Amino acid sequence: MGRTSNAKERLIDTAVGLIRARGYASVSVDDLCRHAGVRKGSFYHFFPSKRDLALAALDAWWETTRNELLEPAFRPDVPPLKRIERAFERATAQQARNEERTGRFQGCPFGNLAMELSAQDEVIREKLDATFARFAAYFEAALAEGVESGDIPAATDVRETAQALLSYLYGIILMAKTANSAQLMASLSSHALRLIPPPSA
Amino acid sequence: MGRTSNAKERLIDTAVGLIRARGYASVSVDDLCRHAGVRKGSFYHFFPSKRDLALAALDAWWETTRNELLEPAFRPDVPPLKRIERAFERATAQQARNEERTGRFQGCPFGNLAMELSAQDEVIREKLDATFARFAAYFEAALAEGVESGDIPAATDVRETAQALLSYLYGIILMAKTANSAQLMASLSSHALRLIPPPSA
Repeated sequence: MGRTSNAKERLIDTAVGLIRARGYASVSVDDLCRHAGVRKGSFYHFFPSKRDLALAALDAWWETTRNELLEPAFRPDVPPLKRIERAFERATAQQARNEERTGRFQGCPFGNLAMELSAQDEVIREKLDATFARFAAYFEAALAEGVESGDIPAATDVRETAQALLSYLYGIILMAKTANSAQLMASLSSHALRLIPPPSA
Repeated sequence: MGRTSNAKERLIDTAVGLIRARGYASVSVDDLCRHAGVRKGSFYHFFPSKRDLALAALDAWWETTRNELLEPAFRPDVPPLKRIERAFERATAQQARNEERTGRFQGCPFGNLAMELSAQDEVIREKLDATFARFAAYFEAALAEGVESGDIPAATDVRETAQALLSYLYGIILMAKTANSAQLMASLSSHALRLIPPPSA
């Protein structure tokens, strides 16, 4: 998470970490304050509710994901399909590093909250739905470029294929979390490009 | 869930429903007793803890999944690839029915608990890991038969491809839950067979 100098940022960093490790319902405002070293009065000064902090944590995690995973993976220094492959590799490496640090395959705050809360909290569900759309847009742009360059058949539905790739990414995170194994995520990652139709011969 | 005549079965049915709708941490023993119409003393007569009831609920949900989804989908009355397609169709139809009944895309107790608890509860994680292995075995058997019949290349790693298919199934459930849309699951389902390598020409 890195060091931060003020209570609000400490709370957000703490929320990202605890949501990743334990989900939402099992983490209380008291837990968040204790782990962040922040008084409860300060908490409510910054965030009207635990949900508001969760929304801020999702924004922070999006910044991390964009800067550390998506922007580097989708840099146009390699062909489009290679960028998609690189996104799966970077996501796997990120999970492996976190597993090494914490001793558990914890998955990602987006996937954890999506499964835990989408049927219960409409505000968080909509936030996650919008976040996944921004995430899928990176895949979609690369696919569209692949269609341009002839690496992908022109008839490909790039929007739906992008959603399929993102689904697969979160599916392998779910399986790897259940197996507590970043190694499983690495093996399954290698099948992702199969979801993209090959160029017609 | 169907009617049941005794407290233990009512508790299990209630747990399946509440875990599906709200996850684990946000459902208390009091909630479970109230919804099941069972006294707390009876609860602890049958189950030493909420976790023990969750384990029984996972067994019950496995029976439902096996009888209503896997056995019918994988009947050998159609070729292997068609059975896999049918499994995705049946899973989608099951989610759509539940969405229609509850007004929410709730996903499946396996996926919900896998994401919420795998990094926290080793007993539940191992139960889910074993359950997913039994689930993937249906895909694997169909793939192996496809290799036999020449519909799938002989070099295919059927075990890993089966895990990839199961990952995709849970990934599209996660995306559909976040979009609150069984329709999205239906669209994305149609891409599942791409994960299986085509026969070499």
